[in-house]
Amino acid sequence: MQEGRTIKVGVLGATGTVGQRFITLLSAHPWFVIDALGASSRSAGKPYAKAVKWKQSTPIPSAVREVGVVECVPEHFKDCAIVFSGLDADVAGDIEAAFRSADLAVFSNSKNFRKDPHVPLIVPYANPAHFAIIPQQQALQSPPLKKGFIVTNANCSTTAVVIPLTALERAFGPIESMLVTTMQAISGAGYPGVPSLDILDNIVPYIGGEEEKLEWETLKILGGIAEGDDGVKAFDMHARHPLRVSASCNRVPVIDGHTECVSVRFARRPPPSPQQVREALAAFTPDAQTIGCPSAPRHTIVVHEEADRPQPRLDRYYQDGASVSVGRVRQCPVLDIKFVVLGNNVSIGAATSSILNAEIAVLKGIVVTK
Amino acid sequence: MQEGRTIKVGVLGATGTVGQRFITLLSAHPWFVIDALGASSRSAGKPYAKAVKWKQSTPIPSAVREVGVVECVPEHFKDCAIVFSGLDADVAGDIEAAFRSADLAVFSNSKNFRKDPHVPLIVPYANPAHFAIIPQQQALQSPPLKKGFIVTNANCSTTAVVIPLTALERAFGPIESMLVTTMQAISGAGYPGVPSLDILDNIVPYIGGEEEKLEWETLKILGGIAEGDDGVKAFDMHARHPLRVSASCNRVPVIDGHTECVSVRFARRPPPSPQQVREALAAFTPDAQTIGCPSAPRHTIVVHEEADRPQPRLDRYYQDGASVSVGRVRQCPVLDIKFVVLGNNVSIGAATSSILNAEIAVLKGIVVTK
Amino acid sequence: MQEGRTIKVGVLGATGTVGQRFITLLSAHPWFVIDALGASSRSAGKPYAKAVKWKQSTPIPSAVREVGVVECVPEHFKDCAIVFSGLDADVAGDIEAAFRSADLAVFSNSKNFRKDPHVPLIVPYANPAHFAIIPQQQALQSPPLKKGFIVTNANCSTTAVVIPLTALERAFGPIESMLVTTMQAISGAGYPGVPSLDILDNIVPYIGGEEEKLEWETLKILGGIAEGDDGVKAFDMHARHPLRVSASCNRVPVIDGHTECVSVRFARRPPPSPQQVREALAAFTPDAQTIGCPSAPRHTIVVHEEADRPQPRLDRYYQDGASVSVGRVRQCPVLDIKFVVLGNNVSIGAATSSILNAEIAVLKGIVVTK
Amino acid sequence: MQEGRTIKVGVLGATGTVGQRFITLLSAHPWFVIDALGASSRSAGKPYAKAVKWKQSTPIPSAVREVGVVECVPEHFKDCAIVFSGLDADVAGDIEAAFRSADLAVFSNSKNFRKDPHVPLIVPYANPAHFAIIPQQQALQSPPLKKGFIVTNANCSTTAVVIPLTALERAFGPIESMLVTTMQAISGAGYPGVPSLDILDNIVPYIGGEEEKLEWETLKILGGIAEGDDGVKAFDMHARHPLRVSASCNRVPVIDGHTECVSVRFARRPPPSPQQVREALAAFTPDAQTIGCPSAPRHTIVVHEEADRPQPRLDRYYQDGASVSVGRVRQCPVLDIKFVVLGNNVSIGAATSSILNAEIAVLKGIVVTK
Repeated sequence: MQEGRTIKVGVLGATGTVGQRFITLLSAHPWFVIDALGASSRSAGKPYAKAVKWKQSTPIPSAVREVGVVECVPEHFKDCAIVFSGLDADVAGDIEAAFRSADLAVFSNSKNFRKDPHVPLIVPYANPAHFAIIPQQQALQSPPLKKGFIVTNANCSTTAVVIPLTALERAFGPIESMLVTTMQAISGAGYPGVPSLDILDNIVPYIGGEEEKLEWETLKILGGIAEGDDGVKAFDMHARHPLRVSASCNRVPVIDGHTECVSVRFARRPPPSPQQVREALAAFTPDAQTIGCPSAPRHTIVVHEEADRPQPRLDRYYQDGASVSVGRVRQCPVLDIKFVVLGNNVSIGAATSSILNAEIAVLKGIVVTK
Repeated sequence: MQEGRTIKVGVLGATGTVGQRFITLLSAHPWFVIDALGASSRSAGKPYAKAVKWKQSTPIPSAVREVGVVECVPEHFKDCAIVFSGLDADVAGDIEAAFRSADLAVFSNSKNFRKDPHVPLIVPYANPAHFAIIPQQQALQSPPLKKGFIVTNANCSTTAVVIPLTALERAFGPIESMLVTTMQAISGAGYPGVPSLDILDNIVPYIGGEEEKLEWETLKILGGIAEGDDGVKAFDMHARHPLRVSASCNRVPVIDGHTECVSVRFARRPPPSPQQVREALAAFTPDAQTIGCPSAPRHTIVVHEEADRPQPRLDRYYQDGASVSVGRVRQCPVLDIKFVVLGNNVSIGAATSSILNAEIAVLKGIVVTK
Repeated sequence: MQEGRTIKVGVLGATGTVGQRFITLLSAHPWFVIDALGASSRSAGKPYAKAVKWKQSTPIPSAVREVGVVECVPEHFKDCAIVFSGLDADVAGDIEAAFRSADLAVFSNSKNFRKDPHVPLIVPYANPAHFAIIPQQQALQSPPLKKGFIVTNANCSTTAVVIPLTALERAFGPIESMLVTTMQAISGAGYPGVPSLDILDNIVPYIGGEEEKLEWETLKILGGIAEGDDGVKAFDMHARHPLRVSASCNRVPVIDGHTECVSVRFARRPPPSPQQVREALAAFTPDAQTIGCPSAPRHTIVVHEEADRPQPRLDRYYQDGASVSVGRVRQCPVLDIKFVVLGNNVSIGAATSSILNAEIAVLKGIVVTK
Repeated sequence: MQEGRTIKVGVLGATGTVGQRFITLLSAHPWFVIDALGASSRSAGKPYAKAVKWKQSTPIPSAVREVGVVECVPEHFKDCAIVFSGLDADVAGDIEAAFRSADLAVFSNSKNFRKDPHVPLIVPYANPAHFAIIPQQQALQSPPLKKGFIVTNANCSTTAVVIPLTALERAFGPIESMLVTTMQAISGAGYPGVPSLDILDNIVPYIGGEEEKLEWETLKILGGIAEGDDGVKAFDMHARHPLRVSASCNRVPVIDGHTECVSVRFARRPPPSPQQVREALAAFTPDAQTIGCPSAPRHTIVVHEEADRPQPRLDRYYQDGASVSVGRVRQCPVLDIKFVVLGNNVSIGAATSSILNAEIAVLKGIVVTK
């Protein structure tokens, strides 16, 4: 990025919870400048501050208070080099497809295209190599696209766990089995989301579709890209070393921050020791850090030594929630190693991942910024 | 039990949280009548209602309000056929030993004697067969005892999970591996216990000593009793079929009720299906039910069909907390079967277990009631 | 009531939260027998257990599990001597009016008719004398009714405070000013009600319409009935001794139980002392107790001496939530006396009040039970 | 302050919750540099990071991690121009007196000297004029002091309410009566503070000593200083216009931020309208802002127009918690005007007030900084 350059961006679903988080982060971003805010026709035409029911603990950034909200149609976003989507799943599919067709680069936090065989599902610290599928995605549209594409980021509970798993596979080779029990914050369900009567003084040991997402997305993200004889690329779903994933997902009365208890078994014998695991996690330095993404934290994985950490309330906002915390690395009597992961579901688990993906795409020339 | 007979009992640690729970349950008990309430010398001499900082959601039973609290010395309890102990671990060891030496039958909720090779660790629905060690325990004291002994019940998080494990081993043979992640209520830590600043809007992924307790106690409870050539009995710790247990214990902002996500692998192949597991759990009928323990519930294991149950707030008080709830029985992609268990830590996880153990001991003639 | 007689009753809005509470209470009632359960057309035709999303901490009463839900039309309720309504305000007006027109006796927990000049707003321990308006209400319908009428009970936050105010006015004459700050439980907003993101680790110092309701309803309930020269009766709104009421209503993260800090100034000088107030509250014995209502508690107002009581979690379920708790009675440096009231909003603040009103109406012959 | 100058400061009670907050704020302060950290003899000698059980949601500032903790004796603080005290009340009296005797300037958050007739109780936006008592305080010590003194700041619940009261008295003359009901955060009780079993799903309508403090401190702060014929100065406790204050204090399950419902009656008739009150509050600009205190916020009182604000979770961290929020300004049917105040008890309600008091003292030359 050239010093002092700015890049115009838009936000779809700007009044929702993910949209509010996008706006909070983008308002302080060194490169990106908000050019358009899209929401439903009910909000369109109003100044942003009137259209939104703001629920963040910092005030609405003054630069967007008076910005007029527009409908989510491409013509209002034609000056945007990047469009971030925080749309609800019930509308995200059609709108994001329309934006791509209009040759716009869409970075989506929604689930609709995550399973698409030509759309990468990118956790910025884990698999930015999957951007390699973009040219094929563009070529397959009719007419073929020059600039437009869709990139998705992962579900919040998946994101938290695949970051340490990536570090472990790089250091110690393939993981064979992973058993994870999550304790997920209420903000993961959006607003109004979880009724208070369901969660105060309670645990709900079920989140619809979450376990399937966590089990499936992990395979797509940790897997590679295989190229057929015909040159067609496909996600291999960790096929060379089959990985079994078992997830149990729980909702807990925590506002922000997903805590996950993880046990893994490595293919390679003997497995690494807890101390080797701790060191590999602490040393993990993904491309996002080295190529200069402004939203990358100083430490991607913060390894805690205290017996009772990480804890969501104390650790979720560290480094603006752009890192994950790991603690309690120890031997697992059933698999090999167990540990606790904490990821901030509204930051690295959502908007921060989209923004980091866009930063990587800018730095690698995948986004056309003129 | 002969119709209309009553049995005098005492409570040690009567002003503590477990003691309060003992008193609440015993005040409504058809057989047991409170004869003595023991606490520290600071409380001794006061009427119970003045000595206690009552924290139950039902008022102090009127029958004990004016009972004078005594010190925890055997002479004040000599009319008691049974002494229940809710003492803190820092004093329980000496006091319970002294009571046993005075030929009193002690049913303890404390951890001090759980690892003793001659003291049974009994979960009433799981291993009442371990009462068989009592004669040996009595014979080993000097002088040998006629009526006195110590019986312990298990840690609250252990109790919840060993009940369904017992049902599964009876139906499908030995379990080979068990991985459990607990989400434990604050009442498990007693009063004052967990500071509110540590747990409001938070998870603490660590409870000192809890994982070791859960891993170790499970083996003692699910194991049998081996008899040497010399006729000496010993707990076999599930030795004939080694069982690997891995526990991750978390404190959560829930008042009562431990929720546990469990995965198991059976020795026998092929393993049972989820539906077979559900049926075996629902059909489980331990001795405590069939021999007529008044505190036994109608259904020992309540199997939930709804996708989002059990939940502590909705299910913990069912059957006065004397049963456990199991839900979400499904296949585990890593081990065989996974499910969610809910046990009320202050009922079946604590005082209710002690009382049921005492009921079994009365019905089997192990307690001498004249 | 004649020994062993039963009275058929119906419940409108049977699947909602108030309806669930009605069903829980009525299933254990000595007189009333559920004959019909009404809900929306979406639920009609289904067995109750399938139609309801049950949210109580006791299971669905077995007697109603298989009862077929019907639509809320009078013909399905023609055998009911009493119809309890837990309908939402958006539909309660038309449906309750239709039931009255069909000559049915409706005891409603909804707000729609509370301001009607011919409908009594009755808190059972405060103003059962207002049943006297019923003949006029019946005469004014066309055609005039013989058995049908509507009786409402008060808003939950009003109910808690008017009970001690009634006791105080009886003992010490008119109150001149009352300032109340409420801390209201989330269950007061129904289900799904308050989003968890709005209330976890938070206070919301506003509940739409609540302050106006509390200020207005208090006047109607504590006031008398004036009779004009033409014999027409009207509620006098405490007109002979104008009463100023100021309410500040807050939502707090408590599941059940509204806590209210109250200050009052009496017309009579000098005002009573705190001790006189305590004694008057403890001695308060409304008609509901003396005439034999089965749902009346032994103590209508429980006066606490401990400095830190009442507390919702510890005191809300005492006497099945049918009483109110008062504590911290002390001098107010600005008005005369201040104290804290706790009322269980889902019991005496809702369904229990309706049922008590019906019991009074039965005992006084206002309901025709053949 | 001269550009680039720094002032050495010390912190007493550095490992406690108030001490941790002092350290967090001072580490980012433009003038003050931490020179000494004092704690109990148990902590003395250890590096700060080992001595403290850190409970803030930002990490320990790196500059203090390795600072060696010292005992709270003046010789270790002799280079400090200012000593901030976050000591517990049981030790603060003796230690702070000793520091003053050693000619050190102590800014204390503890309650011990608040009632001292020669010690000012200063809320920085309300009564910095009370610094005028300092020379008399110094002269009365034997030997008389040149630089040493004690200044206290107010209790957290008092601080929040006296700030708008100050604004109102300046605009509309004396207040005659004030009735306040507080809903106070758990962090106000320090750590470990409130047991979670006492506050989860609960309200505690009592905080020991809090109501007396709020009632008494308000008079000292809002009152002036009277000078006798002998030239001796004394706090007049608002004597020229007697002010009646009635407080009801509640503990609520909120982590940070005290919410207070306030009703006031003015001496002047007619009283101001709600709109006039809103404008006066928003326009309030205390000296701390105009003389250039670096910790003063841009807006001392933030006036909210939305019906449901302020809320602790959304508004407590605005402007680093150095302002107070007021909302719901409306007529009170009993007194004149009522409104809701929110003050961050750990910021403006504690350490931030001490630091602002020190900044004012520096700028006014009351602290000797060489």
